[in-house]
Amino acid sequence: MNIVLLESDQNIALDVWSIEDARQIQHLKQHLQLNVGDTLKVGIRHGQRYLTEVLSISEQQIKLKPIQTETVPEKLPVHLILALPRPKVLRRMIMDAVTLGVEQISLIHSYRVDKSYWQSPFLQQLESYVTLGLEQAGDTIPPKIQLYKRFKPFVEDVLPTLITNEKPAYVAHPYAELKMPSVIQNGCNLVVGPEGGFIPYEIELLKKNGCQAMSLGNRILRTETALSHILGRLFV
Amino acid sequence: MNIVLLESDQNIALDVWSIEDARQIQHLKQHLQLNVGDTLKVGIRHGQRYLTEVLSISEQQIKLKPIQTETVPEKLPVHLILALPRPKVLRRMIMDAVTLGVEQISLIHSYRVDKSYWQSPFLQQLESYVTLGLEQAGDTIPPKIQLYKRFKPFVEDVLPTLITNEKPAYVAHPYAELKMPSVIQNGCNLVVGPEGGFIPYEIELLKKNGCQAMSLGNRILRTETALSHILGRLFV
Repeated sequence: MNIVLLESDQNIALDVWSIEDARQIQHLKQHLQLNVGDTLKVGIRHGQRYLTEVLSISEQQIKLKPIQTETVPEKLPVHLILALPRPKVLRRMIMDAVTLGVEQISLIHSYRVDKSYWQSPFLQQLESYVTLGLEQAGDTIPPKIQLYKRFKPFVEDVLPTLITNEKPAYVAHPYAELKMPSVIQNGCNLVVGPEGGFIPYEIELLKKNGCQAMSLGNRILRTETALSHILGRLFV
Repeated sequence: MNIVLLESDQNIALDVWSIEDARQIQHLKQHLQLNVGDTLKVGIRHGQRYLTEVLSISEQQIKLKPIQTETVPEKLPVHLILALPRPKVLRRMIMDAVTLGVEQISLIHSYRVDKSYWQSPFLQQLESYVTLGLEQAGDTIPPKIQLYKRFKPFVEDVLPTLITNEKPAYVAHPYAELKMPSVIQNGCNLVVGPEGGFIPYEIELLKKNGCQAMSLGNRILRTETALSHILGRLFV
């Protein structure tokens, strides 16, 4: 947690913000020996980032006063299109995508996505994973997240509307002939498959609808490793 | 698991290899509907990779015959120097480092590494994490792993012997002025700190001993996210 993410209704008086969330208070007590008068970095969801001064500390509440605005980091111009990962991996991948600054996320179905994943209670907690990612990165702007439970309608009807000359679509695919580009100047749609990969039919349908299959070299990466690896390679 | 990693003593007769490991057999049964006559990719630890043909399948044993040699992927010329992560993260980071092709790993102490981590039973399982990483990547060559339980002697006595003109040392540090290089042609020593980062004294000692502090931009990444992100950026 590199900032504490606050909601706009935590602004309880002119220039006074209040932390009341148990998770945040516990983290601050456990990892920082916070005292009245110390400074603390916070961000307002969808809003600004501030350096604040601690006004008071009690068991259930920490009150803060903004003393300086700070820069919110820029997003990466990336729309991540991700085959829904299994629940435990979903948490880390949403956190990572948010931390790395992905602008928009679409979770899609695919042949190797277990249908039960769409019923997982973890899928109800996307917002909390986004919060963790924003607090890690020091960002305040949540990405837009959309769910598409059917692969073919997404690829045929939605994907083509996302692709432009300035925003091509790349699917990471171990057996592609072209290599994933590096240090690109524009944005992109980045498609990352499930564990085990997309099946050949899916790769063909993606290609038919404007997506370019790109290899990451001879090593086959786990999806979560691949995500930050590709973003590190695309944007320097 | 993109190859099955075998030990040299599993070569039980001329051109016959035997899988007897319960984990491997279970994985093959669960994820591949393997039949006699099918092909299977294997690698011999420290040795070659083969495409094999399945000769027989029983509850406790699968017998294979190599039919073709395959290419073992090249390593990255990277020595990863990593502040010992907490046990659960250790597993993923060793797997990732191995999957991504890191040549050598040194696990070191640091102020923010809990001393109890050095007593963790997970530390006895490094070899099994390496195996998982090799099987994921399709690699057969384990990296050399060394443990250094004291920070200062490592940085003062060992680190300087690792640094050359062709193999500089970079420490990822959120508050550095220079940016981590990208698309490098040579190798490097890459130092990655603990959760919460190195303390200023440690950064100073690293710099005094030839290590360059490099920033990854305005976003602060988790150590495991940072590792594959940096490697994606350094080596294209």
